[in-house]
Amino acid sequence: MAIRLARGARLVVATHNPGKVPEIAALLEGRFNLVSAGELNLAEPDETESTFVGNAVLKARAAAEASGLIAIADDSGLSVAALGGDPGIYSARWAGPTKDFALAMAEVETKWRATGSDDPHCWFTSALAVSWPGGPVVAVEGQVHGALTFPARGARGFGYDPIFTPEGSALTFGEMEPSAKDAISHRARAFEKLKAALF
Amino acid sequence: MAIRLARGARLVVATHNPGKVPEIAALLEGRFNLVSAGELNLAEPDETESTFVGNAVLKARAAAEASGLIAIADDSGLSVAALGGDPGIYSARWAGPTKDFALAMAEVETKWRATGSDDPHCWFTSALAVSWPGGPVVAVEGQVHGALTFPARGARGFGYDPIFTPEGSALTFGEMEPSAKDAISHRARAFEKLKAALF
Repeated sequence: MAIRLARGARLVVATHNPGKVPEIAALLEGRFNLVSAGELNLAEPDETESTFVGNAVLKARAAAEASGLIAIADDSGLSVAALGGDPGIYSARWAGPTKDFALAMAEVETKWRATGSDDPHCWFTSALAVSWPGGPVVAVEGQVHGALTFPARGARGFGYDPIFTPEGSALTFGEMEPSAKDAISHRARAFEKLKAALF
Repeated sequence: MAIRLARGARLVVATHNPGKVPEIAALLEGRFNLVSAGELNLAEPDETESTFVGNAVLKARAAAEASGLIAIADDSGLSVAALGGDPGIYSARWAGPTKDFALAMAEVETKWRATGSDDPHCWFTSALAVSWPGGPVVAVEGQVHGALTFPARGARGFGYDPIFTPEGSALTFGEMEPSAKDAISHRARAFEKLKAALF
């Protein structure tokens, strides 16, 4: 037997953000019957691991064990070379409890300028994990490399998108059409790997 | 495409302990062509994660990326309920650089007695991870529950085996025939799950 996600399976999405469910449903091509961890009143585990894959695995396993359903979780963020990979797994936490990414982007700019480095290299990472209750967990990771861009540009996307210009592009993720971003994003690459592994 | 480990594949075992390779070869039923991370001079990554699965995933991914080969890693340990799960992922570290498990078992006894608890509940966990370079990582976990047993009994097995009596047994793992231990051990359960997922 090899691992495979059967079409029509009921999956719990390990998020308490209801907006994420339709987005993930679309990325999974509508193949599954999705419910969120929030709808099932599952507790949110502490993200104690030091890597994106580690935290995605931890969240997926916790949701699978608590629900008895196959669970999918993601973890993602922006890593800046001159900051030793920060904010990295702390990307969401830098935005604070109100999820203020204008504040988080200003923090990245302040810290990057304080280093005195002129190296703008940074990358987005998206980790995805699928866990079977009592069974295996499968994880993948996608990345896209690019350059820090100040001042921020564009109102599209979310998170750190307005300060990220992907390699080979003149536009930031915040300026790009969703379809153009989706063609090259860390998230899209992670979902492609997940599909290659499990569909 | 579903994930599957093809018979005859060349796998790197993410360990610098040469004794582990033949043991893992036997557990994998001789299906693969194994080489150790030590033979390939791969660096040992820091075990920075907070869970067994997290550390197995981290070690397997590091070995796969460094070698370009499919990698398999394990992480295991003893968790004591009255010690909040300690030594857990620190099980090997409690034995110190000389891998002195008599010292580590004495430390467990001292700490457990200091709690004043009479709850002997403890469990062994074995996590296994298989990582493809640039691709997915698959992880599983097996456990066996039992009771702390002082004084230690038996000279078989290794690590904390002499102070662990599995549920339903009168003998410690240190006293059991290898075949009897292998029928119920955390490690055997993890390998059964791995085979069910990938063979």
